[in-house]
Amino acid sequence: MSQELFVVNNVWMMVSIFLVFAMHLGFATLESGLARSKNTVNVLFKNSMILPIGLITYTLWGFSMMYPGENFAGALFGFSGFGIPLPEGGETSAYNPGYTFWTDFLFQGMFAATAATIVSGAVAERIKLSSFMIFSLLFVGLCYPIVGMWKWGGGFLNTLATPFYDFAGSTIVHSVGGWGALAGIILLGPRIGKFVDGKAKPIPGHSIPLATIGVFILWLGWFGFNGGSVLSADPGAVSRVLVMTTLAAAAGAVGGCLMSQILFKASDLTMVLNGILAGLVGITAGADQMGVVDSVIIGLVAGSLVVVGVMLFDRLKIDDPVGALSVHLICGVWGTLAVGLFGKLAGTGQFVSQLIGVGAVGAFSFTFAFVVWFVLKVTTGIRVTEQEELEGLDIHEHKMHAYPDINGPAYELSMPEKEEVVVTAVPGRVEALV
Amino acid sequence: MSQELFVVNNVWMMVSIFLVFAMHLGFATLESGLARSKNTVNVLFKNSMILPIGLITYTLWGFSMMYPGENFAGALFGFSGFGIPLPEGGETSAYNPGYTFWTDFLFQGMFAATAATIVSGAVAERIKLSSFMIFSLLFVGLCYPIVGMWKWGGGFLNTLATPFYDFAGSTIVHSVGGWGALAGIILLGPRIGKFVDGKAKPIPGHSIPLATIGVFILWLGWFGFNGGSVLSADPGAVSRVLVMTTLAAAAGAVGGCLMSQILFKASDLTMVLNGILAGLVGITAGADQMGVVDSVIIGLVAGSLVVVGVMLFDRLKIDDPVGALSVHLICGVWGTLAVGLFGKLAGTGQFVSQLIGVGAVGAFSFTFAFVVWFVLKVTTGIRVTEQEELEGLDIHEHKMHAYPDINGPAYELSMPEKEEVVVTAVPGRVEALV
Amino acid sequence: MSQELFVVNNVWMMVSIFLVFAMHLGFATLESGLARSKNTVNVLFKNSMILPIGLITYTLWGFSMMYPGENFAGALFGFSGFGIPLPEGGETSAYNPGYTFWTDFLFQGMFAATAATIVSGAVAERIKLSSFMIFSLLFVGLCYPIVGMWKWGGGFLNTLATPFYDFAGSTIVHSVGGWGALAGIILLGPRIGKFVDGKAKPIPGHSIPLATIGVFILWLGWFGFNGGSVLSADPGAVSRVLVMTTLAAAAGAVGGCLMSQILFKASDLTMVLNGILAGLVGITAGADQMGVVDSVIIGLVAGSLVVVGVMLFDRLKIDDPVGALSVHLICGVWGTLAVGLFGKLAGTGQFVSQLIGVGAVGAFSFTFAFVVWFVLKVTTGIRVTEQEELEGLDIHEHKMHAYPDINGPAYELSMPEKEEVVVTAVPGRVEALV
Repeated sequence: MSQELFVVNNVWMMVSIFLVFAMHLGFATLESGLARSKNTVNVLFKNSMILPIGLITYTLWGFSMMYPGENFAGALFGFSGFGIPLPEGGETSAYNPGYTFWTDFLFQGMFAATAATIVSGAVAERIKLSSFMIFSLLFVGLCYPIVGMWKWGGGFLNTLATPFYDFAGSTIVHSVGGWGALAGIILLGPRIGKFVDGKAKPIPGHSIPLATIGVFILWLGWFGFNGGSVLSADPGAVSRVLVMTTLAAAAGAVGGCLMSQILFKASDLTMVLNGILAGLVGITAGADQMGVVDSVIIGLVAGSLVVVGVMLFDRLKIDDPVGALSVHLICGVWGTLAVGLFGKLAGTGQFVSQLIGVGAVGAFSFTFAFVVWFVLKVTTGIRVTEQEELEGLDIHEHKMHAYPDINGPAYELSMPEKEEVVVTAVPGRVEALV
Repeated sequence: MSQELFVVNNVWMMVSIFLVFAMHLGFATLESGLARSKNTVNVLFKNSMILPIGLITYTLWGFSMMYPGENFAGALFGFSGFGIPLPEGGETSAYNPGYTFWTDFLFQGMFAATAATIVSGAVAERIKLSSFMIFSLLFVGLCYPIVGMWKWGGGFLNTLATPFYDFAGSTIVHSVGGWGALAGIILLGPRIGKFVDGKAKPIPGHSIPLATIGVFILWLGWFGFNGGSVLSADPGAVSRVLVMTTLAAAAGAVGGCLMSQILFKASDLTMVLNGILAGLVGITAGADQMGVVDSVIIGLVAGSLVVVGVMLFDRLKIDDPVGALSVHLICGVWGTLAVGLFGKLAGTGQFVSQLIGVGAVGAFSFTFAFVVWFVLKVTTGIRVTEQEELEGLDIHEHKMHAYPDINGPAYELSMPEKEEVVVTAVPGRVEALV
Repeated sequence: MSQELFVVNNVWMMVSIFLVFAMHLGFATLESGLARSKNTVNVLFKNSMILPIGLITYTLWGFSMMYPGENFAGALFGFSGFGIPLPEGGETSAYNPGYTFWTDFLFQGMFAATAATIVSGAVAERIKLSSFMIFSLLFVGLCYPIVGMWKWGGGFLNTLATPFYDFAGSTIVHSVGGWGALAGIILLGPRIGKFVDGKAKPIPGHSIPLATIGVFILWLGWFGFNGGSVLSADPGAVSRVLVMTTLAAAAGAVGGCLMSQILFKASDLTMVLNGILAGLVGITAGADQMGVVDSVIIGLVAGSLVVVGVMLFDRLKIDDPVGALSVHLICGVWGTLAVGLFGKLAGTGQFVSQLIGVGAVGAFSFTFAFVVWFVLKVTTGIRVTEQEELEGLDIHEHKMHAYPDINGPAYELSMPEKEEVVVTAVPGRVEALV
């Protein structure tokens, strides 16, 4: 490969890094917009710390655990040592004709934190901050690189007779996050006020504009998430992936819009937004294998599934404030299976491998997360007190309001010292905020 | 052309795609920021659906209608068939030395939805959602590709003795949106409370930060809108276009600032923001033809025009909540004519061709939009009821609030089921929200 | 160098331009989020005008003053004439093998406005708008290019026996802004209500989501700020810079988080956010010289310093609403000195040169800013009246509210004409907003 192509590939991968980075802003705004204002700082705090934690654990050991090298081909676990030592030729095309070692590390590192971010939204508004941070560190630091290694690091899912296929992570990133979220929600229970007399009550988020900004940024970021997963700037491959990604997102919006019109008789913006994300998650496993019609179908189905999913989890009394399970778990599974149903790889053998991959990743991720959440629950606890939940995590965990001088009427806040906080609830409003 | 150059060109075009995509987020935040909070979900819903609709109609037929091929050179209308079949060599440089077929499609597809987005803001706060969606589908799906074909698809405006010139769409994108908006506003009438006793009353938007974010993102996106319109990464051409685009935006800000200081005796932020957009719209037709001084003049004039335009439309009792007519129509025309006055193409012949283009596009777009709006008006209706308008489109069309728990004092919202909404207006505040 | 490499380099630099541009949006949202809602329009106005002013002064004379050419090597001041004349070969690789003249100009121009933006936040909530605009024009138009020339334009700091080193501007951009801010704060005094009975009172900003968005965007933008400062797309160099920048930011977050946990016993989101920025500012001087461990240490120290800095300035009764001094001045100095302590250039000679650079730039910038602020203070005045400050700069300077229909309870606003504003403070709330 010419030096010129190496440079272009590397530029493309760096652009993809920026886009995947931007997804963390997308998650932060989406999740905080869908939470109530009394928990907004808490959501943003988690999102602001997950990326640093993810990057640092990935530096210390995660990258070496996810890409342990050829010695671990077909294995269940591998590790090539702590730290990120620059391999020979790591800054030139000798290491990899597509990009430098540093670019490789950074692209993968930006992905890593995503799994925990997905959990963040699902357990929002009642999770204890310290427990969440410990969970995140273990989930991003151990669960994600282990599972990732199974496929992308050359592990056993990659060496099946018909290898499991997951182009950019419908299973390995999104469903992993979804399983972690499911385990957390089960052990954590629903928010106060979510299920009253056996019926699910909507608890609307505090800022639809923030949530909308989040979804647009996530869509933008997905161009790098999927486009960068080509691992080169190969024009045919990358631009095809971008088109299929875009069409699935558009079809997801249409699916979410139509399905919510049918089921709710309303033009439900949150379902359009979730539909876009659903389409994106759905196309992620096979974005390089699909044609135009495939992508539109995958997106339409995903956009419809997400609406049904939200209703289903409500029925099951599983309280997921941001719809993360419907988007990332259900559509992550859907997208992975779709690789066996549509596009170039479609076939029974592939479908079976996809099922194996979905099952193996699901079993491990759910178990891992369940054990971690369970241990935390019986030791430090994972849920805030009822008072903290009612009055908001922001003032209790962070001694801050998200909107101190807009939000005035709800609380008379006195904060003379950083260390003492006096909160006087104004009667009536607090219940309204539950 | 070398393979390397082909790859770089394609990367550049993909970056431009991302930037033009981001403009849709820019429009969503700008327009929702300039609307009242009771209509915010409605604005965001429209913006979230326009892009998917635009992309899907463009896939189904729009792209083939806008770029029907050489058989339709000089024509008024062309069509090469439904769908987007991959032409021979479409993923290599055989199709086009600048970029792949998929990149071509996606770049043009991202542009397509813009025209309807411009209309969205102008008719906000009283338009019936279903009618707007139908209008958008027809406007993006038919009007835009037909007009676009006239110039960019090799149609009759491109085969004038002195061809009409519109580098990146002052006329073909921005004025088209502006004409569609004007037709809609005329048939729709002003918002309740806008003109009282014959005088225009300001109805401020609900979030200046959202609007400001929108303008910055639009400016950013314009680097791709104009920079990508070079259709290659040719360094001299692209970087020159970026400089001229930037200087026009900066001069537009200065023009808007000074003119509002003179006319309103205030440092009016919305006029600075509109001035930036005005400068950007103004430079779009000739960004590759102008020098530094030309660009600054075009921007200054545009930034001044936008302020005068807002006052003028107020005088004419034309109610445009976001200033879309002043920005996109007036400055779209100004920028197009400026190609005949400044820069490399300046001259009488060119100026006449620019007038022809402006006139032909205006006549067709306005007529098309007027007919569609009119048919909708006499059939399904295009305006919400007075009660819906007063209480807000969000709760009536979407059964949602944009800020459910910040916005508390204005409404006591009860939403037991997705299907029934009980709104009790708190006396006094509702009128204040009109 | 091949034409292909020239094109790639130019694409990379254009991407960097976009990212640095985005930083202005980042500053706008960060600073407005940390201001109170009554001053939000004012903050956004300043941020929206600083970039245009910076770009236009840079066009008129700034670029020629910062890069006056070889005739001024080792000098204290240079100037090559007004305007930006296109040098021979300026659009091809003859001018510079890395990128075109226009790209060069635009990348540097986007940097230029940053220095004044830093000042903007620090003097927020009591500065007189007109005086700030004059200060900005002089600071961006004269102080920044003069200081920048000392190093990047080949001036005397670049010709020391051991040349002063500042890769992307810890000193030349960030500390310059910090010194200008310090001078302004000293002459301006603290906001009403900041120091009561000799104790610092927290005055929380109005929107933590806005501030968080700002920090994420700034982090994103920094990839271009530092990555573009390589001045080519050289894969090894650029991707290494990106990794070091990222790790320093991540470590800064951790540093800010831990230090605020220790000192404030709270999970303080603003300190995490400031920690990220601190890490970024800290790594900027030596991002191309550091290894993984160096970068983490620099970030951790910067993230800790920023918390200590905020406390220190509170003790010193220096009222900096956004923490700009801690982030940009303290960590700008720290990052610059760190070049003499860590990485490839570490050594006594280098450390001394770094001290000289920090001292020279600090002495000049502070003096320049102090003189300008002082002259403004004794002529037009630099501080708004007490009534304006209490009621907010938005209604007085801009005749607008940032959130006219969310913010209802605080003011009964009547705005019949653009030129007369009647504000009736609701008793009790206004003091609460102080």
